[in-house]
Amino acid sequence: MSDAAAAASRIAPPPEAVRREAADRLAGLATPAGALGRLGEAAVWWAAVQGQCPPSPPSNVRVVVFAGDHGVTAHGVSAYPSEITALMVHQFLSGGAGVAVLARLHGAELRVLDLGVDVEAGTFPAEVSSYKVRRGSGAIHVEDALTAEETLQALAAGASVAAEEIAAGADLLVAGDMGIGNTTPSAALIAATLGLGAEEVTGRGSGIDGDALMHKQTVVDEALVRAGERVTDPVDRLTALGSADLAAQVGFLAEAARRGVPVLLDGVISVACALVAEDYAPGSSAWFSAGHRSPEPAQSLALSKLGLEPLLDLGMRLGEGSGAVAAVPVVRSAAALLADVSLLADVLGDQGA
Amino acid sequence: MSDAAAAASRIAPPPEAVRREAADRLAGLATPAGALGRLGEAAVWWAAVQGQCPPSPPSNVRVVVFAGDHGVTAHGVSAYPSEITALMVHQFLSGGAGVAVLARLHGAELRVLDLGVDVEAGTFPAEVSSYKVRRGSGAIHVEDALTAEETLQALAAGASVAAEEIAAGADLLVAGDMGIGNTTPSAALIAATLGLGAEEVTGRGSGIDGDALMHKQTVVDEALVRAGERVTDPVDRLTALGSADLAAQVGFLAEAARRGVPVLLDGVISVACALVAEDYAPGSSAWFSAGHRSPEPAQSLALSKLGLEPLLDLGMRLGEGSGAVAAVPVVRSAAALLADVSLLADVLGDQGA
Repeated sequence: MSDAAAAASRIAPPPEAVRREAADRLAGLATPAGALGRLGEAAVWWAAVQGQCPPSPPSNVRVVVFAGDHGVTAHGVSAYPSEITALMVHQFLSGGAGVAVLARLHGAELRVLDLGVDVEAGTFPAEVSSYKVRRGSGAIHVEDALTAEETLQALAAGASVAAEEIAAGADLLVAGDMGIGNTTPSAALIAATLGLGAEEVTGRGSGIDGDALMHKQTVVDEALVRAGERVTDPVDRLTALGSADLAAQVGFLAEAARRGVPVLLDGVISVACALVAEDYAPGSSAWFSAGHRSPEPAQSLALSKLGLEPLLDLGMRLGEGSGAVAAVPVVRSAAALLADVSLLADVLGDQGA
Repeated sequence: MSDAAAAASRIAPPPEAVRREAADRLAGLATPAGALGRLGEAAVWWAAVQGQCPPSPPSNVRVVVFAGDHGVTAHGVSAYPSEITALMVHQFLSGGAGVAVLARLHGAELRVLDLGVDVEAGTFPAEVSSYKVRRGSGAIHVEDALTAEETLQALAAGASVAAEEIAAGADLLVAGDMGIGNTTPSAALIAATLGLGAEEVTGRGSGIDGDALMHKQTVVDEALVRAGERVTDPVDRLTALGSADLAAQVGFLAEAARRGVPVLLDGVISVACALVAEDYAPGSSAWFSAGHRSPEPAQSLALSKLGLEPLLDLGMRLGEGSGAVAAVPVVRSAAALLADVSLLADVLGDQGA
């Protein structure tokens, strides 16, 4: 893309006037300066992305989990087989998955979509598979994850889903991922985006160590070597190193930002997608906040690049969007404090001082 | 107290059988081992203190803020004058204080009590002042905070309040503090309990630095020297270095533990009281969890001694119990996950595997 075209397509930032009004209000609360800590910063971000000060707490939180399988799983990068992905999609539907439990508890809507699960047609209800791109994505160390057409299809699917959730009234979106093997393409995408080596980005995923971890690092390295210079372009990067579920999440994140609706990011998969979304639609990340810190090293590297500091740091590594949904009450706390704590001027006024 | 008497008065721990049942359930969830991170540990603690597995999320959370003034405030240890304490008590009552906003948002009951605010009788509604011990506590670097009788009165007041809140159905308690200057006696109590020097425990409180911070450190040091060997006994320690509000919180925490009701601790004041409560009623701290990490160095030192790791780390330093109330949804998340995430055995059973 030319510089001019990039500038033209740049995502509009959250309104600066509201951000400044929120920062002023924070400074005027009847609390010691800085006493709200990072809740104060989160509140200012939230007011800006909501476009009003004082803000109201997020009340229509909508979570979309993108599901898909990854060819690398057959090559020993995970503690679990690909069959678990489909089993877990059923758990999302029945309400027994972690993110489903948290969404119920914290009043968020949950939707799961099969973008690339390796199952026969008809395995899931029709509404789950309506955006399906393919059965499993390619094993990225030996072949492209997707064809170029499939990447565009997945990006468009994610954008359509974002538009649907926003039409349903979302004031805060969460994107999660379900797919055994998904930390491998995520690590590869982060390494390719940041120019890092496999040894810096490869983590334990669902719980591998020792030889399996070394092997996973080799797979990531081979994928990066195989992709070569094609990774410069974010769409080609997804084609070479991503997957249908990850490309869809990139499209979802970029479209949410384009429509000015904030997103709370989850773990390494979600943050990998946010990093690519920032390349794909520059300026997107101003609409994102980080829900939690994952133990995956690549997540922290990507968050630093995006300038985001997570709200929670609980060592969660469940995926599914669960860390982001666990952080929703923190955003609510931040918004309520900025909106409802007394202003110093009013307190002093009450006293006739 | 003799060793025999101490053993006889030791607080009964949460039921080990329930703790073990909860740990087994956590290991049997349809998630990778350890994937819930510290939410898993919090869930096991919560099941044990609730006495049932699966647990239910806390539903009757009751917050008590103990208010009082501190003689050291007249000696330049705070960025604010004592008059702010009374002003803030009015803010608790009108709902504009930080902890009041968070309690409303997260469905917790809030009660504020004047234990030692430096105001005329009749300043607050009668129910706020029914446990009042005195007007202001002594400046601990030049005199005792309380008389021995006042310390016992404050401890008994806190115990009565805990009993009342438990009778009202509390399944999770939070104790907060309001009182300009309160980080000074808290730092002194932690130093005296752990055998540390003033330079290790003194923090910026509501926001002092430079010469004021050095002066605060000198005040803490003088208080420790003045108290000398009397600090060995926890009641004498409160008499010499505490205050009416802090002694009441110690009584509250110990009584909650004695009655087997869990408490979510707040910042440095709350954790100082928990540390003294563990000496005063050994075994109490098994009933406590840490809501958040404060920037005060003494809080982290005391938490380490108690073996507690906070749920939130957001740089909050508002006091009032606000950090603990912000963490209530994290406890709810933990409880719901342990109770409602599918068991691996059931998932495999569903598939006929």
